Amino acid sequence: MSHLPVFGAGIWHFATYVDRYATEGYGEPVGLLEQIDQAGAVGDLSVVDLNWPFAGFDGTLEDVKAALSRNRLRAVAITPEIYNKDYIKGSVTNPDPAVRAKALALLNEAAELAKELGCDYVKLWFGQDGWDYPFQVNYHDVWKLAVDALRELCSAHSQIDFVIEYKPREPRNKIIFPNAARTLLAIQQAGVANLGILLDFGHSLYGLETPADAAQLCIDAGKLFAIDVNDNFRGWDDDMVVGSVHLVETFEFFHTLRRNGWEGVWQLDQFPFREDSVQAAKQAITFLKAIHSALDALDDEALAAAQANHDALAAQKLVQKALLSSMAEDV
Amino acid sequence: MSHLPVFGAGIWHFATYVDRYATEGYGEPVGLLEQIDQAGAVGDLSVVDLNWPFAGFDGTLEDVKAALSRNRLRAVAITPEIYNKDYIKGSVTNPDPAVRAKALALLNEAAELAKELGCDYVKLWFGQDGWDYPFQVNYHDVWKLAVDALRELCSAHSQIDFVIEYKPREPRNKIIFPNAARTLLAIQQAGVANLGILLDFGHSLYGLETPADAAQLCIDAGKLFAIDVNDNFRGWDDDMVVGSVHLVETFEFFHTLRRNGWEGVWQLDQFPFREDSVQAAKQAITFLKAIHSALDALDDEALAAAQANHDALAAQKLVQKALLSSMAEDV
Amino acid sequence: MSHLPVFGAGIWHFATYVDRYATEGYGEPVGLLEQIDQAGAVGDLSVVDLNWPFAGFDGTLEDVKAALSRNRLRAVAITPEIYNKDYIKGSVTNPDPAVRAKALALLNEAAELAKELGCDYVKLWFGQDGWDYPFQVNYHDVWKLAVDALRELCSAHSQIDFVIEYKPREPRNKIIFPNAARTLLAIQQAGVANLGILLDFGHSLYGLETPADAAQLCIDAGKLFAIDVNDNFRGWDDDMVVGSVHLVETFEFFHTLRRNGWEGVWQLDQFPFREDSVQAAKQAITFLKAIHSALDALDDEALAAAQANHDALAAQKLVQKALLSSMAEDV
Amino acid sequence: MSHLPVFGAGIWHFATYVDRYATEGYGEPVGLLEQIDQAGAVGDLSVVDLNWPFAGFDGTLEDVKAALSRNRLRAVAITPEIYNKDYIKGSVTNPDPAVRAKALALLNEAAELAKELGCDYVKLWFGQDGWDYPFQVNYHDVWKLAVDALRELCSAHSQIDFVIEYKPREPRNKIIFPNAARTLLAIQQAGVANLGILLDFGHSLYGLETPADAAQLCIDAGKLFAIDVNDNFRGWDDDMVVGSVHLVETFEFFHTLRRNGWEGVWQLDQFPFREDSVQAAKQAITFLKAIHSALDALDDEALAAAQANHDALAAQKLVQKALLSSMAEDV
Repeated sequence: MSHLPVFGAGIWHFATYVDRYATEGYGEPVGLLEQIDQAGAVGDLSVVDLNWPFAGFDGTLEDVKAALSRNRLRAVAITPEIYNKDYIKGSVTNPDPAVRAKALALLNEAAELAKELGCDYVKLWFGQDGWDYPFQVNYHDVWKLAVDALRELCSAHSQIDFVIEYKPREPRNKIIFPNAARTLLAIQQAGVANLGILLDFGHSLYGLETPADAAQLCIDAGKLFAIDVNDNFRGWDDDMVVGSVHLVETFEFFHTLRRNGWEGVWQLDQFPFREDSVQAAKQAITFLKAIHSALDALDDEALAAAQANHDALAAQKLVQKALLSSMAEDV
Repeated sequence: MSHLPVFGAGIWHFATYVDRYATEGYGEPVGLLEQIDQAGAVGDLSVVDLNWPFAGFDGTLEDVKAALSRNRLRAVAITPEIYNKDYIKGSVTNPDPAVRAKALALLNEAAELAKELGCDYVKLWFGQDGWDYPFQVNYHDVWKLAVDALRELCSAHSQIDFVIEYKPREPRNKIIFPNAARTLLAIQQAGVANLGILLDFGHSLYGLETPADAAQLCIDAGKLFAIDVNDNFRGWDDDMVVGSVHLVETFEFFHTLRRNGWEGVWQLDQFPFREDSVQAAKQAITFLKAIHSALDALDDEALAAAQANHDALAAQKLVQKALLSSMAEDV
Repeated sequence: MSHLPVFGAGIWHFATYVDRYATEGYGEPVGLLEQIDQAGAVGDLSVVDLNWPFAGFDGTLEDVKAALSRNRLRAVAITPEIYNKDYIKGSVTNPDPAVRAKALALLNEAAELAKELGCDYVKLWFGQDGWDYPFQVNYHDVWKLAVDALRELCSAHSQIDFVIEYKPREPRNKIIFPNAARTLLAIQQAGVANLGILLDFGHSLYGLETPADAAQLCIDAGKLFAIDVNDNFRGWDDDMVVGSVHLVETFEFFHTLRRNGWEGVWQLDQFPFREDSVQAAKQAITFLKAIHSALDALDDEALAAAQANHDALAAQKLVQKALLSSMAEDV
Repeated sequence: MSHLPVFGAGIWHFATYVDRYATEGYGEPVGLLEQIDQAGAVGDLSVVDLNWPFAGFDGTLEDVKAALSRNRLRAVAITPEIYNKDYIKGSVTNPDPAVRAKALALLNEAAELAKELGCDYVKLWFGQDGWDYPFQVNYHDVWKLAVDALRELCSAHSQIDFVIEYKPREPRNKIIFPNAARTLLAIQQAGVANLGILLDFGHSLYGLETPADAAQLCIDAGKLFAIDVNDNFRGWDDDMVVGSVHLVETFEFFHTLRRNGWEGVWQLDQFPFREDSVQAAKQAITFLKAIHSALDALDDEALAAAQANHDALAAQKLVQKALLSSMAEDV
């Protein structure tokens, strides 16, 4: 069996959530340090992605470092909250220059923190940058603001990487970076080497992409800097536990990564609204290990031959053979 | 010109919102009395639908009545909050009997309040009753719990009507009453006369129904007790301002209501996350008045002839002529 | 291991296809007798569903019977072609009474043939009955025509069953029987005992239903007369080989059937446009046998306990354990 | 009033169709010359896009030229049929080198014909180039074949333009050029100046794009060579008559073209399966003229101000005022 990948999670996996209906939350608030301890309790996680500012946290950075350390966790990334109250009509594309400046300041701050914590990258998720209604914005102008801001930000921090996590929609009805190809265009136009893509499997899936194909496109462009996994019903970002629905396509996604020698973190971006968050992570990792084992079992040569003929049936046969016995040793 | 309909709105139209990202809200909290005053400020609203419990409100029922009165508003309905923190795994279908009992108590309480306020109906929206994952529930059991609870609740309050507002999903990935036909089956099985449907145009649209057809189905069953309007991009309950996207289908929906002599409230269920809520309601009503005017202008006889032949082109011609001149007097 | 189910297929599985682009077909035409021989060549099929009229076939009924016999196949159903050239604006809901009469004549003819061949049922698929454009039809009238025709047809043939195969759309943009609940309402209104539902897994999936839940609803109404399986990407009736994408939900579907003691045919409705049709059927049955084996392996008691708590994680764990080792014996 | 645009249509608008169910067609076959005569009968069409080979036509090129001439029509484009029987597993990405060579030969032939007829461009629609099943193809290899073929083809015909018409799916479950951004990446990688995009409004809509935004992206890249319009229900390429459903977004699309000074043909790509094709084109052009008139009426300055603030309500107000009076007699 090949060596296991590094597993990670967004720290928000261990938070509780609100939505527009359950405004008082899906559980009691969980503080940042407690979230980190829960991440540690999963047992298989090595890295976490941290939001900045530390939401509702009044401790010190040293407290955070200590919590990470006692749980043998490393901060792999910082995700600045450019989608909260101050940025409801956008961060770097906000119509108000003062808000744009404020967003950029926060992004710079996040970059500094990421360097301080030895992170691999700063994650940019522009959830509020986009539009809701037809005719609401001038698309040319919004796009230019976004590309210019990316260039300015990334140029100022050449020592660290940045990734754009694209997503078709939510919370905005339309987000400016909805899919891999569009995001690659923005990265090209920004013209900075330290900017890449974080491909979220679920975003790709409900954005009408074939996630494995999107991954290949990013890899071929040298821009697949990171990935997140989860699952959904293909119409929305349900952020379900990975392996709940799309077993075959998840398998294909990781197969594509392996074929290309991609060796980054297998990272969870799940929202267990009504589930125990530690158990949800454990369940996910159990499944990911089964995928990993199925990758070992897959007959790569025969699959390559099937694919050379675009032979769907031969490929499916090989895939099912590997996947449907991937937990055999556990029975 | 025929007389204008009665316009109404869910009082939450005038609240501010949170979601899972903008956890601190899309604006400063607006108290209940202020919400009522804003509803009054719209100018064309005659009725509102009130949530119960009055969220974050520490005044008295008399305060609420006074606020309604000074704004010449009537409470047309009470919507009990059976989808908040206490009910995240369901209200009347919760696996825990104690939670089910609590939900029923709240529903009874809401029915009493509705009677006290002279409402037309209690609105039942089972947003947390459903499932998120394959294999999560026993569908037979969940359905039976729902139907039994409906029967018990409605039987206990024969003096007032109840309506089920169906919705395909959100917040649960799947909701037990996802469309008109399924809800009609539940109503039949409950076997109570005072239970009907509130058809939300947007829910119907993104649930793959043709809203006008769903309305006709409910009308033919004698069960179209109320309606809500809004708009979306057909993949989610965006709750946009009515008339933003689906002009023709909104027109068809109201045409079907008029053809059947349905004369209920034209009610707004919009979530203007980033918009001024009074302006959003005004814009909606301006559009609805144009629809109303287009209904007057539509050549019903010629349309009936076209429909008798299933002649889409002839029908469209008549529809565009009426709709695309419905705001001409304002030019 | 429990006994294997009876496997079947629509005979069109072994035809070649055209679509609006590949108007000359995806392969050379395959005659009816050859289709039957190919069904026989699969090895695991016991029954087939036959279209009527026998498309492009100039032999006799005896030829067909002989072909079935030599392949040890039985005709389980007749599917009358009420969706071909003569019925492009509908069969029993066509605006033209002459076309409606013609459709009814064909349906009666199909019923006689079904009796003659000892079929279990006549399958009614109203693919052209519906609408394409807003305002095209009067929904009340179309629905009434459909229900009246069902009543007349089924009443005239009490010795044989009829099933409606519902489908959200295609070829009409909207079909009159789009989902299980709506179809059950029609069956109720028709008021005939020998009319039930054929639930096509793929139709249910892309129609926003949870197929297992739809099956339970039909079973509870005593109306699940037959099923078809295939797979798709949830946005269209792709009619892919079963098990290509939705392994977990297919498993759940069959689990629901077993839990309810449903023992009908496991029938394929696949369109292998570009694949070898015999291989496509074999691949499907290999997968279905794995599902069957996983059903045996599933811990029903533990699953029931998980479901009693709506415990998604516990349920998923059991499901993956059974499913992901379902091909272990082949490794 | 500003001058009217040039109107055009794909010649297939005037054909009859088959699909996988109505295999004998939705009407009697219509020959190529008759199709051209029908295009002429519309009255407002100036150009047509012709398929190559001329399907089922045994006349001469001179006959075609004469038919065009007598109807005062010009061939604006040639669309080679690289999606028919010979190419069911792809044209330039087919796994068989012999098929790829054959496809390229046909494409070259089409380019010669286009030059001969004085067309503006050759339209490339790769409907069969893609995949249907997970794991069916090696995405890297398929993409490379496509880009290499584009480069070779376009380089060989520098005197004429080529356009890629992207589409998310159908007939393949996934097509290699599914959206504007991905297609722009292919164009970049091909590195040829005479290759651009034909943006089909309906493809963009059901591919989750905002068509106006996609148009702006292509324009900013200097690559919006042509457009097609039609309408759909956002889940499939229904190819309905333009203006049937998405009035506002169609208006926004043309507004974006005008704002950028784009002055190409307003071209119809409709499939009136069950409608009179001449009437369907007339209805479409009547609507497009209303859009054109609404563009004249729209207060561009006020709209720009609203958009500078991302003010959806203000923008909608202006839009409705112009659009909902665009067919008033007095305008």
